[in-house]
Amino acid sequence: MSLHVIPPRSGAAFILRAGQLLKVIDPMGVQVSDLLAFNAADVREVISNGRTFDYEETIALTTGHRLWSNRSNVLLEIVEDSVGQHDFLLTPCSEATFRHFYPDQPVHRGCFGNLAEALAPYGVEPDAIPTAFNLFMNVPVAPDGALQVDPPVSAPGDFIVLRAAMDCVIGLTACSAYASNGGSFKPIHYQLLD
Amino acid sequence: MSLHVIPPRSGAAFILRAGQLLKVIDPMGVQVSDLLAFNAADVREVISNGRTFDYEETIALTTGHRLWSNRSNVLLEIVEDSVGQHDFLLTPCSEATFRHFYPDQPVHRGCFGNLAEALAPYGVEPDAIPTAFNLFMNVPVAPDGALQVDPPVSAPGDFIVLRAAMDCVIGLTACSAYASNGGSFKPIHYQLLD
Repeated sequence: MSLHVIPPRSGAAFILRAGQLLKVIDPMGVQVSDLLAFNAADVREVISNGRTFDYEETIALTTGHRLWSNRSNVLLEIVEDSVGQHDFLLTPCSEATFRHFYPDQPVHRGCFGNLAEALAPYGVEPDAIPTAFNLFMNVPVAPDGALQVDPPVSAPGDFIVLRAAMDCVIGLTACSAYASNGGSFKPIHYQLLD
Repeated sequence: MSLHVIPPRSGAAFILRAGQLLKVIDPMGVQVSDLLAFNAADVREVISNGRTFDYEETIALTTGHRLWSNRSNVLLEIVEDSVGQHDFLLTPCSEATFRHFYPDQPVHRGCFGNLAEALAPYGVEPDAIPTAFNLFMNVPVAPDGALQVDPPVSAPGDFIVLRAAMDCVIGLTACSAYASNGGSFKPIHYQLLD
């Protein structure tokens, strides 16, 4: 039940056992958290946006929806969601995306670098990091398909709760990109609940 | 300039050299072709829908758009497109998706199985097959995020042309799923042009 803190612009990785709940909290509001999940028994099995869109038949994922793996198994189920606005289209920010989108700002390794470092002890190589499920991230899709990145609508204390369907390695960040977080960087809190 | 034929419900893999053009033709119309691309020098670098959505800032990809890798490099550029309707949200059909979506039909290994077999000689493992760029696939996104799979709008002879930005291993199918192809299965043709 202890509260874990991910400092601004950093990341963490940990085991979530089958049946356990992961509560991810946006303590100050308007802060994105990139989430990855891998089968703890074989990290080649990994969360897949395409398989999730296949089976859930929507890109708007919230309570009751499941997050599927590249092997067509459920990794996580969303059991509570006080925001209802997340993104599963865009990849973790990285040195390359900082150079592309923020050429006047210092380059940062971003969520990609933070996830790569946190997941390395679990045997996950950087190339194996897929599109993340980006909690609280606000990416409206226009009728013509155009994407934009708006500030999250999450208020201080908003949260999402996910239940593990199998033992998972979880990667989780406090996102490092300007546009995703309304221009500032805040921590993310999480709890593991039995 | 020779014309290659992918028979209905099958797949192929081949090398596309940097600068070469790949023309993929829907000879009878209303037929999807799943396309994958890998860096031929290191197949851990692979086409990424998330990185492509990041940099192209749209999910509606057509002439002038580029298809990006997980390492933020351009693999392919779309240089001609007589259809303008493709999908980069959904994963290749597979035994699992046949069981899920077509429980009354015989199970087929689908594009996933066809791609896995065709790509194995290039060192690509099944778990490394990501969301494909699904040529001619018609997946409208409703305002609430809901997805549906409609028949392609491609007419007989419609095509797309892509230019390789690096030496690529290409995987390509004639799609095996009922909904994607308006209920019937047809061949796909392709040409490599210097």
